[in-house]
Amino acid sequence: MHGLMQDYPLTIHHILWRVERLFARKQVVTKRADGVHRYTYGEMAARVKQLASALARLGVKEGDRVATLAWNNYRHLELYYAIPCMGAVLHTLNLRLSPDQLAFIANDAGDSVIVVDETLLPLLEKFVDRVPSVRRVIVMNEEDYESLLAAEEPSYEWPRLDERTAMAMCYTSGTTGHPKGVVYSHRSTFLHTMAALQSTTMGVDEHDTILPMVPMFHANAWGLPYAAGMAGANFVFPDRWMGDADAILELAETERATCLAGVPTIWVGVLQKLAGRTLPHVRQIICGGSAVPRSLIEAYEKRGMTLLQAWGMTETSPMGSIARPRSWHGEQAMDARSTQGPPSPCVEWRIADLETGAELPWDGVAFGEIEVRGPWVTSAYLNETGSARTTADGWFRTGDVASITPDGYINIVDRAKDVIKSGGEWVSSVELENAIMSHPKVLEAAVIGVPHPKWQERPVGYVVARAEHRDTISADEILTHLSAKFMRWWLPDEIRFIDEVPKTSVGKFDKKVLRQNAEPLRET
Amino acid sequence: MHGLMQDYPLTIHHILWRVERLFARKQVVTKRADGVHRYTYGEMAARVKQLASALARLGVKEGDRVATLAWNNYRHLELYYAIPCMGAVLHTLNLRLSPDQLAFIANDAGDSVIVVDETLLPLLEKFVDRVPSVRRVIVMNEEDYESLLAAEEPSYEWPRLDERTAMAMCYTSGTTGHPKGVVYSHRSTFLHTMAALQSTTMGVDEHDTILPMVPMFHANAWGLPYAAGMAGANFVFPDRWMGDADAILELAETERATCLAGVPTIWVGVLQKLAGRTLPHVRQIICGGSAVPRSLIEAYEKRGMTLLQAWGMTETSPMGSIARPRSWHGEQAMDARSTQGPPSPCVEWRIADLETGAELPWDGVAFGEIEVRGPWVTSAYLNETGSARTTADGWFRTGDVASITPDGYINIVDRAKDVIKSGGEWVSSVELENAIMSHPKVLEAAVIGVPHPKWQERPVGYVVARAEHRDTISADEILTHLSAKFMRWWLPDEIRFIDEVPKTSVGKFDKKVLRQNAEPLRET
Repeated sequence: MHGLMQDYPLTIHHILWRVERLFARKQVVTKRADGVHRYTYGEMAARVKQLASALARLGVKEGDRVATLAWNNYRHLELYYAIPCMGAVLHTLNLRLSPDQLAFIANDAGDSVIVVDETLLPLLEKFVDRVPSVRRVIVMNEEDYESLLAAEEPSYEWPRLDERTAMAMCYTSGTTGHPKGVVYSHRSTFLHTMAALQSTTMGVDEHDTILPMVPMFHANAWGLPYAAGMAGANFVFPDRWMGDADAILELAETERATCLAGVPTIWVGVLQKLAGRTLPHVRQIICGGSAVPRSLIEAYEKRGMTLLQAWGMTETSPMGSIARPRSWHGEQAMDARSTQGPPSPCVEWRIADLETGAELPWDGVAFGEIEVRGPWVTSAYLNETGSARTTADGWFRTGDVASITPDGYINIVDRAKDVIKSGGEWVSSVELENAIMSHPKVLEAAVIGVPHPKWQERPVGYVVARAEHRDTISADEILTHLSAKFMRWWLPDEIRFIDEVPKTSVGKFDKKVLRQNAEPLRET
Repeated sequence: MHGLMQDYPLTIHHILWRVERLFARKQVVTKRADGVHRYTYGEMAARVKQLASALARLGVKEGDRVATLAWNNYRHLELYYAIPCMGAVLHTLNLRLSPDQLAFIANDAGDSVIVVDETLLPLLEKFVDRVPSVRRVIVMNEEDYESLLAAEEPSYEWPRLDERTAMAMCYTSGTTGHPKGVVYSHRSTFLHTMAALQSTTMGVDEHDTILPMVPMFHANAWGLPYAAGMAGANFVFPDRWMGDADAILELAETERATCLAGVPTIWVGVLQKLAGRTLPHVRQIICGGSAVPRSLIEAYEKRGMTLLQAWGMTETSPMGSIARPRSWHGEQAMDARSTQGPPSPCVEWRIADLETGAELPWDGVAFGEIEVRGPWVTSAYLNETGSARTTADGWFRTGDVASITPDGYINIVDRAKDVIKSGGEWVSSVELENAIMSHPKVLEAAVIGVPHPKWQERPVGYVVARAEHRDTISADEILTHLSAKFMRWWLPDEIRFIDEVPKTSVGKFDKKVLRQNAEPLRET
């Protein structure tokens, strides 16, 4: 027996309907070199239709990939709505990648149009000639983008779309192999948006003014452009001043931002600039992308600001969890906020034994690879045959290793490829790294497993000393520091001092390079 | 091009997964004649599986209709989860209907099992013999329901269901013709639940303790049983003390309820009992089912409690809107709260001219029939051929007449069948009734249109005087009272005093009866 409910597809059209019909007076603000650009959602909605008309006139059809190479600004927001609503696919290029990577990605996606911020033209010119599928480049300035819009009427007959139609795509910046394309559907983004408005997750609300320091080329800026539209929140964009703590503070104060979002390093920088000030309008700071130190959460808490840790990845759209505490107080609440949180509605997870794949208990101790499923989780990468990261029963292997508390909160301990197998037991490279980096003489550290004939692998620490301690630091004092925290067999067999930890294009530790170049253990 | 996202069906299974895996320690409390029954979501989840096993053993299969005739209590909640999760259809019978109506409805639905509260057996016995499809009656007591559960293991292999599978059904208590069945799908209820957790609507949260005074046989208690499960809120049930203001107050105080829900008459009663007290834990009272007087909202506001008006109907699952104000203050916020609010995410509406069907502007003045669409709006009634209430382009005609503000808030002025057409203009019967009932000598009043050779229809007021004023009230003083508010041509041609306004089985004014028996106008 089937339900007798309307066959209403879950598409971005509904979000745009709300922007236009309910929230026409709400504002979108973008920082400029001098002052800000400011307009209403009503004006935006009209321009979205002009933009779609212009793209259609240039030959863009349903299913075509239209790429953006752009910062966080109002024109990028217009593209976020126009491209999916016309049935094309919004492909956000990561401007922090190398020209070679961008050429690979644009070819893999088969982009037919690229819309580029004027300031990013020099980067575009380094790879666009190598992408034969590109028929047209649109520069977001008066002469090109604005002229195209000005030639069109603010009306467009949106096509009726199946909710499983592709609406956007992002590439993962994996440290192994080529980047891989994740393709979101209208349905997946619509549901993700429904969740982002829930008070148990981000709780995006009409009362909010959202300032996203997370780039629009990273997993759709965590879905905030659509969440803001659905809820009717004001939007404030930093444009290219994304890592500039002074600019963030000024924008947040002037525009009375209530909800900020970005990676931990941003908030470390902002904290230093804050000094004695506070941001009284800020009700929450969403912080994800890598693990958030408890000390950072506490430092913001002392200033009356709630910094909430989030977990997710490009393959999970990205919202997996937000570490909002339950009806708990004091230490218990702070403990919960130091985890990566419970699963968002629509997301299910489990942890699998790293060797056998067997499901492990939620006891807060056992750890294994997190496997997730849900309507906004990747089933396959673009142009991929088979799907090595999907289990036989359909869950996505995240590559993150965690334990889960009895209430369902995850504690991430490592990446699956980095965890070290020693004598049949697992050692977390991340926990060792964090402990080493808490030593006052250490600037940064990475820990990898090096082959061992008896124990299979043993941890080795690669340590960069702070400049002023380079001559006085010793392996022994690092090991002594660690021995207070860990069992003896967790301690690294060797500490190797280096000048710098090799990093990927997006600034993560590149342990693959460390492993490739690792000397064997001295004594085995 | 299709998105590459998991094919994850939106079903009640996910909500039950959250109840069991994340919120096992949260509580469900039910009032008893003496004290309360109390258990955890963890215990509930185990019993849900025992219940499904018992129903399967009794022969219940996917697609079967399993009816309930029950108050708001924990066993009813178990049925809310077990029946849909096994692929059967939860059919909640309205215990306020007559035995004849119940017999018609149970036959129309083809119920195979009826699960009944022990106290409602006398009602069941008045119609169950007339329903040949019923193979088994289960009485919710120790001997029957509890014995069936005790014989089963707390495990059940839920079937994988298509999200469009029917999961529940309710009958509308329409004032014309037979009741009609509305059939909800897993998908529609899942999406409705996602919306109920949003801070712009009900904002159901893990911090909440929900006390629903809306019956579980009215549009699934406005979706609260599933919203509470998804969010992990505690639940408090009044059982059969549903209209008992003292019981509500005691439960709300003892259990620290934060979210109450029910029709306006309940809150009028509670207000009288409140006297000087307040309920400091209550953060919101959701109030719907009929229009809410602004004075009631203000009276609760004075006591520090937020009473939020909601609009919807069985055919809209029911949440259409919650009148939560925007970033407004003072009078502007109270004005917004006196409307029926803006559409919930997933709901789109428009108003259609009552004669031509043409779409009318959102100017706060023009009024027409509200038409809605969305994934939880009815496309057809059960066993209905064709669908007179769906427009050619797929919108549901609600039968409610309203204007819409430029921000999308609706103001309901009448039912489409009750609005009066006079000389080419529309007169709202509801506005006239409210104005007449605000006269101190009036107990209740209904206004209908009576045929007129020149003006087509003219309003006539049927008025019940308060007992103490029966001998002194006059038509003239009513008309004088009205003339301060309305243009001259809105005033009723006649005021007819009667002893009582005829009512339907659920207590609404039955204007159909008034119209059938209406005397012609004296002077035409």
